[in-house]
Amino acid sequence: MIVLGIDPGTAIMGYGVVSYQNSKHKPLTYGVLRTDKEEKTEDRLKKLFHGINGLLDEYRPDVMAVEELFFNRNVTTAITVGQARGVALLAASLRGIPVGEYTPLQVKQAVVGYGRAEKQQVQYMIQRILGLQEVPKPDDAADALAIAICYCQFGGKSSWRSSKG
Amino acid sequence: MIVLGIDPGTAIMGYGVVSYQNSKHKPLTYGVLRTDKEEKTEDRLKKLFHGINGLLDEYRPDVMAVEELFFNRNVTTAITVGQARGVALLAASLRGIPVGEYTPLQVKQAVVGYGRAEKQQVQYMIQRILGLQEVPKPDDAADALAIAICYCQFGGKSSWRSSKG
Repeated sequence: MIVLGIDPGTAIMGYGVVSYQNSKHKPLTYGVLRTDKEEKTEDRLKKLFHGINGLLDEYRPDVMAVEELFFNRNVTTAITVGQARGVALLAASLRGIPVGEYTPLQVKQAVVGYGRAEKQQVQYMIQRILGLQEVPKPDDAADALAIAICYCQFGGKSSWRSSKG
Repeated sequence: MIVLGIDPGTAIMGYGVVSYQNSKHKPLTYGVLRTDKEEKTEDRLKKLFHGINGLLDEYRPDVMAVEELFFNRNVTTAITVGQARGVALLAASLRGIPVGEYTPLQVKQAVVGYGRAEKQQVQYMIQRILGLQEVPKPDDAADALAIAICYCQFGGKSSWRSSKG
């Protein structure tokens, strides 16, 4: 199974592609898509859309995994993250790729085994699980890998819940 | 000039297509795209994307006009509206259609001539400006027509500002 994890954002969108077979995780690629804040919103979204489609073309993931959004932050951020998230979900849906959504708590549970884990613990475990030489950078890429790992753990099981909004 | 006004939302997305020539507005169509809350988010977004593309195919608008989002409401709403808005902006950008964004104040200013106008005044003026038999329903369609009218008034002028986010 190949999972594309996405950490959505308009300025920077993290992605991580993880292959999962025989209970072993293998990182295929990870990184971020960046857009220029001087560009128009719609053109930035188009760039993200093309970037995600490029990943779908190259790695042919079986599923996309995205974090459920809960914000305490300002509402403007929620809108711009929502816009980028919408484009990512659309890209999956247009190809018939199922989407799994998880809460931050579920992601930490899956990666560290403890829902209240600190960021550094999560990053350390991502590195260990994927056998990486170093902690994946930037944070957005690490978060995308974490959600992909979470799908590998929970995917198909009862704790998995499909995207409803 | 043909303007497609969009009032974004995931459950219900308002649209209104207005032709503007020689300072006269003509409504070409208006209505709403609805999606079922029992469906997965990504499939709802796909449905909206296809619906908007259908409007772009049929009416070939020169521009898309969307309200700038300011929310006092809860952040979850901002995310789901943001997702739908992202899909609408993407549809425009993929076709190279420019997008104009206006604040609710600018929309009221354009339609009623008064930024603090009541909803009913706005709806009355939409009906008058477009020569409709009755107030356009539902509200989401009326709001989409209002933003289209706003573009006709402000579009290309100095008060117009292109989408940046």
